[in-house]
Parts: sequence; structure tokens; C-alpha cells
Amino acid sequence: MTRARLEAFADGIFAIAATLLILDVGVPAALNESLGRELLSLWPQYFAYVVSFLTIGIMWVNHHRIMRQLERVDEPFVFLNIGLLLCIAFVPFPTRVLAEFVRTDDGNAAAVLYGISMTVTAIFFGSVWFYASHGRRLLHPDADPRMVSGITRSYLPGAPIYATATLVGLVSAEASAALYGLIAAFYMVSSAFFGQADE
Amino acid sequence: MTRARLEAFADGIFAIAATLLILDVGVPAALNESLGRELLSLWPQYFAYVVSFLTIGIMWVNHHRIMRQLERVDEPFVFLNIGLLLCIAFVPFPTRVLAEFVRTDDGNAAAVLYGISMTVTAIFFGSVWFYASHGRRLLHPDADPRMVSGITRSYLPGAPIYATATLVGLVSAEASAALYGLIAAFYMVSSAFFGQADE
Amino acid sequence: MTRARLEAFADGIFAIAATLLILDVGVPAALNESLGRELLSLWPQYFAYVVSFLTIGIMWVNHHRIMRQLERVDEPFVFLNIGLLLCIAFVPFPTRVLAEFVRTDDGNAAAVLYGISMTVTAIFFGSVWFYASHGRRLLHPDADPRMVSGITRSYLPGAPIYATATLVGLVSAEASAALYGLIAAFYMVSSAFFGQADE
Amino acid sequence: MTRARLEAFADGIFAIAATLLILDVGVPAALNESLGRELLSLWPQYFAYVVSFLTIGIMWVNHHRIMRQLERVDEPFVFLNIGLLLCIAFVPFPTRVLAEFVRTDDGNAAAVLYGISMTVTAIFFGSVWFYASHGRRLLHPDADPRMVSGITRSYLPGAPIYATATLVGLVSAEASAALYGLIAAFYMVSSAFFGQADE
Repeated sequence: MTRARLEAFADGIFAIAATLLILDVGVPAALNESLGRELLSLWPQYFAYVVSFLTIGIMWVNHHRIMRQLERVDEPFVFLNIGLLLCIAFVPFPTRVLAEFVRTDDGNAAAVLYGISMTVTAIFFGSVWFYASHGRRLLHPDADPRMVSGITRSYLPGAPIYATATLVGLVSAEASAALYGLIAAFYMVSSAFFGQADE
Repeated sequence: MTRARLEAFADGIFAIAATLLILDVGVPAALNESLGRELLSLWPQYFAYVVSFLTIGIMWVNHHRIMRQLERVDEPFVFLNIGLLLCIAFVPFPTRVLAEFVRTDDGNAAAVLYGISMTVTAIFFGSVWFYASHGRRLLHPDADPRMVSGITRSYLPGAPIYATATLVGLVSAEASAALYGLIAAFYMVSSAFFGQADE
Repeated sequence: MTRARLEAFADGIFAIAATLLILDVGVPAALNESLGRELLSLWPQYFAYVVSFLTIGIMWVNHHRIMRQLERVDEPFVFLNIGLLLCIAFVPFPTRVLAEFVRTDDGNAAAVLYGISMTVTAIFFGSVWFYASHGRRLLHPDADPRMVSGITRSYLPGAPIYATATLVGLVSAEASAALYGLIAAFYMVSSAFFGQADE
Repeated sequence: MTRARLEAFADGIFAIAATLLILDVGVPAALNESLGRELLSLWPQYFAYVVSFLTIGIMWVNHHRIMRQLERVDEPFVFLNIGLLLCIAFVPFPTRVLAEFVRTDDGNAAAVLYGISMTVTAIFFGSVWFYASHGRRLLHPDADPRMVSGITRSYLPGAPIYATATLVGLVSAEASAALYGLIAAFYMVSSAFFGQADE
């Protein structure tokens, strides 16, 4: 397995999962009110679309950041990646459930489902990185140790943050959904402005 | 982040969003008349499919034209691109709504939704380009200044044109839909016949 | 626009259109008989899936055969390709309609829709090739003239053959569907056994 | 046809088929109980998603293992691959049927459909490899004979194993579904821990 083909496969899954999110946005078959009002009342669906799209986009950027540090890939690494991609491709489902139910009495279950999905995804992301970087197993000989430990530090809080937002979902679905949005915004802003420029 | 991987991810989103448009075209579950008549009466769906497919195709060509001028990409540029791709992947939704409602009393809301989507997309497209070209931030040292200012000039009218067609949608959904088609046709013809041939 | 990026975009559309075909295959929400019988009675859907998948596969092989003869691409060629890809991405719709209606009283309309789609696709395929090869406009200087005229000869019958099968659909939907299958089988066998081996 | 473009097309189909699997997972339009209970009762859908995603992932790894041994591809090989990809792209359909019906009286038909799909896929996989390796037809001159015969040995049991699980499905759908999961787990573990590390 070469690094290039793993990247191509992963890029495909990231791109498809992100694009499929739009299938979750839909006007009800039977309109209860004017189309304009219906379209405005879909805002939880737009919000969920944007948050999940950006979350997948951020993960794609991070996946690339990992891959750039590697000299080679091995079989366990490939299968850890398949597990990670399984989680990424799963995202459209909790997104659809959250968008549909966040403002109903069933909102808590939807928020918890979304949170568990993201927590498991974060755990897989951490596993991919720790497997690759432990003892510099798969790293380039010239991978910058400060960069490596910086990536390690950036992965440690992922799963606990999402687990916390999941617990918040037990109490308030809407607060939890707002947190998911804030997490995406925080990662995006910090990555866009404090990430390093690459060639 | 390398330019090549951003291009591969963007190409994936462009291709998937364009191909998903066909899922918006469908025969109603219960036919009211013969299949032949039903298929003919779907012409707004065919029209919307063609216009949106060509619009995405033109955007893909333009995206490539931008990328060819760049020497490198940086993190804010990547995230501006993710925002642009979020808009591109959104296109199947307003397309479906426009196709379904353009000839109903609710047509105006559908036309306005489509127009707003395209206006926001044009704004993101402009932002991607102005970020990259401002002070020649990310440009190749040998990027031709006339080419660069030509691209800049070609992006300036995008958002105002779509905003105008959106306003037309407040008055007449069908006139607005015709304008969306004309904009796509105009860009395609001007690009195909006056664009430069590349190796 | 480089040849490589056009190929990547086209490969994406071919692959996605072919894979979306499976969404056309489905068990009815309410079963009228045992699942086993329902699954067997879906055979027109399996047949349509196989024929359309192979047809898209053959077109992908042929698209590659064209691209290999080219030294460069220009803007009109790119937009002819976008028109061709628009037709390819359309295929899941007539496939779904044909599978659903071929054995009903409305079968003729479904067969004609499928045939018109394929005829237009064949015309676009021919246009792409004739534009590229006319006066050797975009060809490699060392493109073998016999190979070039061989490709030209192989494209001439495409549109008339599909147009004929479309006319047959006016009389018998099932005969027309069988012809679409035969055309795919013929192209595949002739290409697999008489096509040249490449490095 | 170059090896690289066949790989790109195949990677696209593998990635799209795997990602489309999530469309098979869905909450019923009308909830019978609380959303939380509904989400828990979807476990056969989650199970089917995971098993099919991993199965496609394993096949993608194996496809790459084949391609790495090849020096070139020829036309029959390309069309055998299109047949294989037709099977891969079909996987979302039996997955959806199995997930929906495994716990109903109709479970046996669903389990048999899934098993037949996998058996045919395994037969195509074997054909692709035996065509390429027979008399070292398409192999690299320096392809290691032990590696080649190792791959051959690993393909021999595929079809019989899936055929056996299919027969089990005639008796018990659930036992058969468990077997499909075990087969995927077995291939994944053996490949991850006993597969060779590559550059």
C-alpha cells in the first residue's frame, strides 16, 4: 500500500461524505405553510449542514497534516485509517437526525447520537496518529520533533471535548448543538490563523 | 497542505455535487397521466439539471484557472476554499427546490433561494481569488500580470449579476430562472471561445 | 486546463454516475408477497443496473482512448467534455425509469427516454472526438493515423445504432431494452478481445 | 489504458460505494417510540453498515495488492475489473435489504441475497487475479513468485467461504449475518497483522 493511494482513497471518502450531507436537507413533501416560511424554518438543517461540512473539512486538513509527516504506511495503519473513514462516512446520518429532531422533545437523543459519533471519530483520529508517531514508527526521519509533539498535543483534547458536549446533550440538545458549532469554528479559526503556511 | 491535494479534494466535490444533481430529477410515485406526458412535464427539472450542471462545470474550470496562477497555498486559503466548496456542494438543494416550485405560486421563494445560493457562492469565489492575488500573496512569481488582472475583472461582476437575478426572482420566478440559464450560457460561451488554449 | 485535471474530473463523474445507479434498485416499501419473490421480480432493475453500469464503463474506456491521443486540450474541448459528462451523469434517471416501467403499459415512453439519452450521449462523444481530431487539432504529433481513423470509424455508428433502438422502443419496450443490453455486450466483447493491449 | 487511470477509477468506485452505505441507515419517517429507543433498535443497520464498509475496505486493500504486482494492464483485464467494480457498487443494495429484513420472517431471503452478492464478487476477484497471474501474463518481471502464490492461495477460499455462509442463510438469517461479520473481521485481522509492511 503506498501513501499516495491511501491519500486518494481517503480524499474520496472525505469529499463524498461532505457532499452527501446536502441530501439531508429537504423540503417536506407536503408544505404546511408557504414555501418561503418552510425554507426559513429549515434553519436547523442549514446549521447542521454547515457544521458537519466544516467538521469534515477540518478533519480532511488534519488528515493531510498527519500524512505529510509519514515516510511510509503499514497494514495496521491502513486498517486504522479504514476505521477512521468508516466514522467520517457515518457523519451524514447523525447530522440528519440532529437537524430533524434538535427542536423536538427527542432532541436529547439526537444530540447524544451526534456527540458519540464525533467522540468515536476523535478517538480513531488519535489512534491513527499515535500509532504512526509512537516511537516515530512511520515518521519521516526528518519530521520536525516540535511539529510532531505539536500535533500530539492538538489531538489530546479532541475526544474529551466532544465527550463533554455529548454529556451537555443529555441536558439540552440546543446547547449541545451550539457547542458542536463552536468546536468546529474554534478548530477552523485556530487552524487558519495559527497553522503554518506550506508550500 | 499541497496545491495538488487541495485540487484533488476540490475536483472530488465539484464532480460529486454535479453528479448528485440527477437525484433531484424524478418521476412522481403516483402518475397522474401517461408516463410520456409526465416525462415531458418534467422539463423544469431537466432545465434546472442542465443549468446547475453547467454552472458547476464553469466554476470548476474557473477554479482551475485560479489554481494555475498559484505557487503555493496557505491555511487561510485552504479554509476559504472549504467555504467555497461548502457552497458548491449546497447547489443540489436550491436546484431541487427551484425545479419543483418554479411554476407554482411559491416560485418566487424558490427563485430567491437559488439566487442567494449563487450570490454567496460568487462572493466566496471572489474572496478565494482576492485573498490569493492581493499583493500577489500566493501567486507564481512568473504569473502574467495581465492574466491576473483579467481574472480579477472577470470576478467583479459575478456577485452583482446573481444578486440582480435574485431580485428579479421576487417579481417573476420564471424570468429569474431564465436569467440563471442565460448567465451560465454567457459564461460558457465567453469562456469557450475567448478563453485561452492551454497545454 | 491541463489534460490530467480534465481526466481526473471526468473519471470522478464516470465513477460516481456508475455507482449512483445502485440507488435506482430498491425493494418497495410495502411488500406484496414474500421478500424472496419480490427480490426475484426485481430482475428488470438488476438488468438495467448491469446494462447502464457496463455502458458507462465502456464509455469510460473510450474516453481514455480519446485522451491518450491528445497532446493538449483547449477551452472548447473542455466545454464539449462538460456537455458529455452532463449526459453521463444523467444516465441514472432514464435507467430508473426504464427499470420501473419496462413491463408496464408505459414501457414505450421509458424505452424512448433511455434511447434518446444514449443517442445524445453518443452524439456528444462523437463531437468530442471530431473536434479533437479534425485537422489533428489537439492530437499528439506522433498519434498513429491508423489508430486515429480507427477511432473515427468506431464512433460513426454509435448515434445511428442508439437512434434505431430508440425507434424500436416505440413498438416494443422489451425489444428495445434487449437491444440496449446487446449494444453494451457487443461493444464490451469487441473492445475486450479486439482492443489493443497497452502498457 | 494505463494502470494509473484504472486505479483512479477503481478507487473512486470503492470510495463511493462505501460512502453510499450510510444512505441505507435511516430513522423511520413515523416514530413508533422515543427517538432514543428507535436509534437503539437500528443496531442491525449499524452492524450491516460496519460489516459492508469493512468488507469494501478490505477489498480495496486487496485490489491494491493485485495492482502492485502488475507491469501493465490489457483490455480483457480492464473489463474484468469493470465487472468486479459492478459487484462492489452493488453492495449497498443487499446491505440495505439485509439490515431491514434480517430480524423478520423474510430474513432468509435477505441473507441469501447478501451471500450471493458476496460470492459473485469473490469469483470476480479471483478471475481478475487469475487472469493477470496465469502464466505471469501481466505481472512485473520481478514480481516475487512466493508473493504471487501467496496471493493465489489467499483467493482460493473466498468464494467457497461466502457460498457456505449463503447456505447457512437458508437456515438462519442471523447466523449467516454473524458469519459475514466474522469473515470481514478475520480478513481484516489477518491482513493487518500478517500482511507485509510496504513503503
